[in-house]
Amino acid sequence: MSDKPKKPQKLRARLPRGLGDRGPAEIAATRRMTDIIREVYERYGFEPVETPTMEFTDALGKFLPDQDRPNEGVFSFQDDDEQWISLRYDLTAPLARYVAEHWDALPKPYRSYRAGYVYRNEKPGPGRFRQFMQFDADTVGSGSPAADAEMCMMAADTMEALGIPRGSYVVRVNNRKVLDGVMESIGLGGDDKAGQRLTVLRAIDKMDKFPVTEIKKLLGPGRWDGGEEGKGDFTKGAGLTVEDSEIVLGSLDATSAPTGMLDSSEAYKQGRAELDEIATLIVAAGYGEDRIKIDPSVVRGLEYYTGPVYEVELTLETKDEKGRPVRFGSVGGGGRYDGLVSRFRGEPVPATGFSIGVSRLQAALTLLGKIDTKPDHGPVVVTVFGGDIAGYQAMVAQLRNAGIRAELYLGNPKHALGQQMKYADKRNSPLAIIQGSDEKARGQLLIKDLIAGAGLAEIKDREEYLKKQADAQIEIAEADLVSEVQKLLAKHGVSWSA
Amino acid sequence: MSDKPKKPQKLRARLPRGLGDRGPAEIAATRRMTDIIREVYERYGFEPVETPTMEFTDALGKFLPDQDRPNEGVFSFQDDDEQWISLRYDLTAPLARYVAEHWDALPKPYRSYRAGYVYRNEKPGPGRFRQFMQFDADTVGSGSPAADAEMCMMAADTMEALGIPRGSYVVRVNNRKVLDGVMESIGLGGDDKAGQRLTVLRAIDKMDKFPVTEIKKLLGPGRWDGGEEGKGDFTKGAGLTVEDSEIVLGSLDATSAPTGMLDSSEAYKQGRAELDEIATLIVAAGYGEDRIKIDPSVVRGLEYYTGPVYEVELTLETKDEKGRPVRFGSVGGGGRYDGLVSRFRGEPVPATGFSIGVSRLQAALTLLGKIDTKPDHGPVVVTVFGGDIAGYQAMVAQLRNAGIRAELYLGNPKHALGQQMKYADKRNSPLAIIQGSDEKARGQLLIKDLIAGAGLAEIKDREEYLKKQADAQIEIAEADLVSEVQKLLAKHGVSWSA
Repeated sequence: MSDKPKKPQKLRARLPRGLGDRGPAEIAATRRMTDIIREVYERYGFEPVETPTMEFTDALGKFLPDQDRPNEGVFSFQDDDEQWISLRYDLTAPLARYVAEHWDALPKPYRSYRAGYVYRNEKPGPGRFRQFMQFDADTVGSGSPAADAEMCMMAADTMEALGIPRGSYVVRVNNRKVLDGVMESIGLGGDDKAGQRLTVLRAIDKMDKFPVTEIKKLLGPGRWDGGEEGKGDFTKGAGLTVEDSEIVLGSLDATSAPTGMLDSSEAYKQGRAELDEIATLIVAAGYGEDRIKIDPSVVRGLEYYTGPVYEVELTLETKDEKGRPVRFGSVGGGGRYDGLVSRFRGEPVPATGFSIGVSRLQAALTLLGKIDTKPDHGPVVVTVFGGDIAGYQAMVAQLRNAGIRAELYLGNPKHALGQQMKYADKRNSPLAIIQGSDEKARGQLLIKDLIAGAGLAEIKDREEYLKKQADAQIEIAEADLVSEVQKLLAKHGVSWSA
Repeated sequence: MSDKPKKPQKLRARLPRGLGDRGPAEIAATRRMTDIIREVYERYGFEPVETPTMEFTDALGKFLPDQDRPNEGVFSFQDDDEQWISLRYDLTAPLARYVAEHWDALPKPYRSYRAGYVYRNEKPGPGRFRQFMQFDADTVGSGSPAADAEMCMMAADTMEALGIPRGSYVVRVNNRKVLDGVMESIGLGGDDKAGQRLTVLRAIDKMDKFPVTEIKKLLGPGRWDGGEEGKGDFTKGAGLTVEDSEIVLGSLDATSAPTGMLDSSEAYKQGRAELDEIATLIVAAGYGEDRIKIDPSVVRGLEYYTGPVYEVELTLETKDEKGRPVRFGSVGGGGRYDGLVSRFRGEPVPATGFSIGVSRLQAALTLLGKIDTKPDHGPVVVTVFGGDIAGYQAMVAQLRNAGIRAELYLGNPKHALGQQMKYADKRNSPLAIIQGSDEKARGQLLIKDLIAGAGLAEIKDREEYLKKQADAQIEIAEADLVSEVQKLLAKHGVSWSA
């Protein structure tokens, strides 16, 4: 593809913007997190199903907010038969395709979960990646508010299972129908107003990001990024009158009663009734307002929601690496998307789902110190002297056969012991095995205890130093290698597989 | 992107060719497999690192065999700054980029592992997917044959850990340098012959796929897919004379001694010496020829190998779903790729790696019956009658709080009990909870034991039938819900989290 020039002398090793590599601590933390989330989702009766990374572009649809890039937020390419294929931008649109395709074989309601990477072809920024992990659960085939209530309870349970204390998160619930009612009341009902409605919703969605004065600009004529006219990028507004803007903003106040105008809207009344039912179920199941709360300002950015929408927010503040206060905000959410499966089925198929932003939540938990970033202990390193690598390799094999993490020093075998020990230190190895020609002649070998030896430099007392130093290196018979290594690992609480 | 027509009436729910969905049994099997592989790789002292799905196209390089598609085997698209980005086609090329980018911070040798999906823009076929999972380990910064020997031992250990008995797999080892020596001896040395050498290697690589007569065509003038001239697709041959073809084919016989001509090739001698060292190390570590075997016909398809190459093959035959015999062939492999990191570093960086084709191996293990495809038990289903969903929801919450997988029936609450029980059966639920108005008035509820009830229809004896039937449904006090459910689950060996 493209006319590649002659092989360059030296390529630059770098990643495209908005993508990142992940090291051992991060990978281990993701595994622990997804294990916990999976356990909660399964307790709620969801079963796993996974779809591939790519789908036909038309099957995914175009529901992303803020499509400010040429190919509208998704990575796409043309297959050899000219059909367009895209990387999934969420896990919901592919699930809708899956359910529609396998409709007859699935139990109804169909309750499933999945974790996976999703891809957004967006302008990357701090904390905004073009590949990130989501963990979703969906109930397809139930229009009951009980299905939505359950998602909210599961969101709360998941946060607590992940170690976020009650009071440090909240699940906020609203209903798109309530928002639709507000729209109707200001003359924005009907299919032809869909675009304008979406602009209003997206303005509301920015409530936690901008002050009210800025939201008013987004509801009205539009907003300049740079703070004043002509400065920075311009975001087109919804074009509401000042009066209509006030009605919209007033409707977001949870404490105020609905106005008479709203009360005459069927959508509004139905939305309120569904929220009441959700509230009743939540209370019956023992979830208080400290965990799940009705909040009229919740919107959710995606276009496909049709009913209840919910958002999980971390309410904690913390400081970032530079000491600046950070508000975590949303780490997950979801809602009812009754139209998404219907696109394939040609009949109404109610559905509701919840998604955790695993990557984003992991970043938050890391900042909160809820994630263990201490590296695990490395393998036992068998150091080498001279040519007889086979003998050292046999020691490694013995250790591994006993379930102990072990490796041969694979750098140049002529490297001095000091360099080999530096390698072991860098690997965070608990022990190193040493056998020079002297030890070999006696059928012995040395075990260097790197954990015991680590504190040596700080010891002031001479006697203690000598005792500790003696502890940090022991000579044993070759035949006792495995049992002595196990003894030392056990002493330091380093595990091995049995 | 593209001039999309007006929203179609009904979309067709389907996936692009060569992609598949994965259900609960498949997902669970992959998790078990990757857990086992991870355990073995960690025992060998490798630590995890992961790179993203996409890389700059030039960073990945073009090393795929059989590039018969317009964009040469990879999925690519242009970023908004015109740079080409591709989905990774393996896990080795991205690792080379990672190591080069983080060179100074990494311990050397750098030993790492990773599992992930890779993508090939190839013509899909039976068992040939465009997205599949690999699980790799690599040692970068060691030129020692001990590093290669270790990969072979780890491959063998992994197969046995996955339940493949000794004798049912073999790790075959060769050396590209030996093959290079053969090339030299027939006048195919030198950089200008690289393309022709590759064609010869790919012909040899087909030895397990085609009879020798077909290989001779590929080494010579070329081969018609359809069996005779002009029939099917034409694969261009390497253009060797009949005599040179015989030399190449003769060199693949493990039992024959090298000819004098080969013995004068430096590359050949070095390759043989490395293979001898690998053989010595393998024997010292206790691995016999039944597990790891030197075999001159091993090539490996990828272009970037420079030294020892190895392949894990399942030697079992089995039958596919239609009763036809299936030979599994290669389920993993790897080799030394000393040039891949150097592309970025401008200095030699030796490296060797091993990759398991997880998706392919899983398909093989499934056919062999080594993978448990029995579905897990589903959740306890709480059935509903009439309007008071909140009361039923509270029961579900009680069960979940006790760690029991449970759910409310979320279909239409007016559905008859029979339909609700059918749902529970389809979910493979162990128990269903029933509370009609009668039971409710008495503060009681019914537990239907679906496991005990499953065998009822086959029971002939009247007494036994009545006894079993009584067992299959018990009435209990509301307050005993959790303890009685736990009692029944324990009886059937269904676990719950404490």
